[in-house]
Amino acid sequence: MATIKDVANHAGVSVATVSRVINDTGYVHENTRQKVDEAIRQLNYSPNEVARSLFKRKSKLIGLLLPDITNPYFPELARGVEDRMQESSYRLIFGNSDEDEHKERDYIQTFVQNNVVGVISSTNDPNADTYMKLKIPVVFLDRTSNDMPSVYADGREGGRIAAQQILARGSRNVTIQQGPKHVRPAQDRYQGALEILEQSGTPYQVVQTSSFSYEQAGVSAKELFQKYPDTDGVIASNDIAAVAVLHEALRLGRQVPDELQIIGFDDIPLSSLVYPTLSTIHQPAYEMGREAAGLLIEIMENGYALHNNIQMPVSFIQRDTTRKVD
Amino acid sequence: MATIKDVANHAGVSVATVSRVINDTGYVHENTRQKVDEAIRQLNYSPNEVARSLFKRKSKLIGLLLPDITNPYFPELARGVEDRMQESSYRLIFGNSDEDEHKERDYIQTFVQNNVVGVISSTNDPNADTYMKLKIPVVFLDRTSNDMPSVYADGREGGRIAAQQILARGSRNVTIQQGPKHVRPAQDRYQGALEILEQSGTPYQVVQTSSFSYEQAGVSAKELFQKYPDTDGVIASNDIAAVAVLHEALRLGRQVPDELQIIGFDDIPLSSLVYPTLSTIHQPAYEMGREAAGLLIEIMENGYALHNNIQMPVSFIQRDTTRKVD
Repeated sequence: MATIKDVANHAGVSVATVSRVINDTGYVHENTRQKVDEAIRQLNYSPNEVARSLFKRKSKLIGLLLPDITNPYFPELARGVEDRMQESSYRLIFGNSDEDEHKERDYIQTFVQNNVVGVISSTNDPNADTYMKLKIPVVFLDRTSNDMPSVYADGREGGRIAAQQILARGSRNVTIQQGPKHVRPAQDRYQGALEILEQSGTPYQVVQTSSFSYEQAGVSAKELFQKYPDTDGVIASNDIAAVAVLHEALRLGRQVPDELQIIGFDDIPLSSLVYPTLSTIHQPAYEMGREAAGLLIEIMENGYALHNNIQMPVSFIQRDTTRKVD
Repeated sequence: MATIKDVANHAGVSVATVSRVINDTGYVHENTRQKVDEAIRQLNYSPNEVARSLFKRKSKLIGLLLPDITNPYFPELARGVEDRMQESSYRLIFGNSDEDEHKERDYIQTFVQNNVVGVISSTNDPNADTYMKLKIPVVFLDRTSNDMPSVYADGREGGRIAAQQILARGSRNVTIQQGPKHVRPAQDRYQGALEILEQSGTPYQVVQTSSFSYEQAGVSAKELFQKYPDTDGVIASNDIAAVAVLHEALRLGRQVPDELQIIGFDDIPLSSLVYPTLSTIHQPAYEMGREAAGLLIEIMENGYALHNNIQMPVSFIQRDTTRKVD
C-alpha cells in the first residue's frame, strides 16, 4: 500500500506539504495541490484514519447507542442515522445498551477511548453524569432533554390522537396499555391518551406493560383480555404490543374492528403486513435518525446549531383495526 | 482528564512502566503493577485507544457489514455478533451495504482506514477482490465460502425440510417462491425444496421474488394468488414473504391451514406473533452471530481456527399455518 512518503516522492514535494493538502491545514499553492492530488490518485493512496485522527486530533467516528436493535423500531432510526452520516463520510461505532445503566456507561467510555467526535444516544437518562461530563457533542434521539440537543417525536400529541380517534370511531370501554415506566416517550403517549379520556368522561382502564419485548407483548395481551374481557378499544403501548393484542383478540374470536378496535404506536413496517392491517400512530423513525445525524454534524462542524431541540410530528394511520368514519 | 504522565507521577514510576502495565508488554514487578493499577483507579485514567492502537499497532475495533439492518433477520445476527464481541472487549463499526457492491467496497475501505483488526461480512460476493486483498481476518456470516472462514445455516437442508413437511401434511399443488437470485442462501433453500418436490412427482410451480423488502413481499403475494389461485401450499422465500402470503390468503377468504398451508424461513420473532402463527424453518440467527464473532476472535488471537467453516442446523417449527400430522 502507498505511504505518504511515496506520494511526496511521486509529486516531488515534502511529506509536510502532502500532509497540508490532505488535512487542509495551511497554505499550499494550487499547482502543488494538483500535483499532490494527482499522485494520491495514481498511487491509490488512502491516508490512515488513525494516524490522521492523532494528527488532527479528530476522527470521523460517531458513537451510536440504542436500547436494542432487535426491537423493530430501532433499525429504522439506525438506518436514518447511518445514511445521513455516510453522506458526510462519518462512520458509526454501534452498541446496544439494553437499557442497562452500567452497559451504557461502558459503551460511552469505549466510544471516547476510540476518539469518537460525537455521540447519538437513545438513553433513558439524558441527565446522567456520563453525558454531562462528555467533552464532545451529544444528540439524544427519540428522547427529550431540555439541556441538551435532541430529536424526538411528539409522543404526547400521539397519545391524544390515538384516544381521540378511538373515541370518534365509537369505542366506549377503552383499555390503555401503559408502556415501561422508565421509557419517557412511552409515558408521554400514555399521558396524552389519559388526558383525552379523562376529558371525555368515557370509562377506561389502564394495564401496565413492563417491557417492549416480544414475549412480554404476548403475556400482556393475554392478561388484558382476562382482566377486561368486555373492552371494545385498546390503545397499545407500541405496534408489537398491538399486534399481540390483535393476535389474542382473533384467537378469542373477537371481531376486529366491529367489536374491538386497536391502535398501535410507531408504524413499523410489520403493521401493514398483518391481517387485518394495524391502525397506528406514525412516528417518522427514519427521518428522526437523519435529523439527529444532521443536528450532530451541524454542532460538530459549526460549534453550535440553530435549533437544538427538534420535535417531529406524528400522525394517525387509518388501517383496518379501526372502524371507518365519515 | 488524567494523562499517562499523571499516572506515572502519582505512582512514582516512569511513563514507560505505566505503558508496560497498560499494554501488558514486558515484565513489571507485581508491587509496581499494583501501584500503577491503584493510580489508574484513583485518577480515573482511561488510556486513549487511538494512541494505544498506534503503539500496539492494534485496535479493538471490528467492522461489521450487513445488507440492511431494517430487514428483521439481520438485527438478530448483529446482536449475536455484538454480544460475543463485547465479552472480549471488541467494539463494532457498523455499516449497511444495501447489497450494493460499490457501497460495500467503500465500507470495507473505511473500516481498514479506521484500523479495524477484523471484519465480519454478509456479502453476496465472498470472492470479491475487496476481501481477497484484505490483510486482516474476515469471517463471512450467513454466507458460504470455500476459501474463507464462514458461519452459515444449512439452507439446502432447510429447503428440503420445508418441502417434506408441506407434502407430509397433504399439500398437492405447491408453489415455491424463489428468493432473490443474487442471494446465495435463498438459492440454497430453493434448490433444496426443488429437489424434494422433483423426487415426489407432486405438481408444483415457481414464482420469483426479486428482493426481501416489505413492499416487494406484498406485491409478490398478490401476484402469487393471481397466477396460481388453486395452490394449496406455499413455501415462502422468508418469513416476511410468508406473512405477506398469509395476509393475502386471509384477505381472499382462504382457510389457513385447511385449504392452504404456508411455511416461512428464518423464524424471526414476528412469526409467532401473527395470527395464525407461522410455521417456519428456524435458523439460529443470534447463535450464528455469536459463532461468527467467536470464530473471528479465535483467528485474530491465535492466527488460525480449528474449524473455519461452521454450518449451523435448521429445524422445522410447527405452528398454525400447517396442518397437524400424527
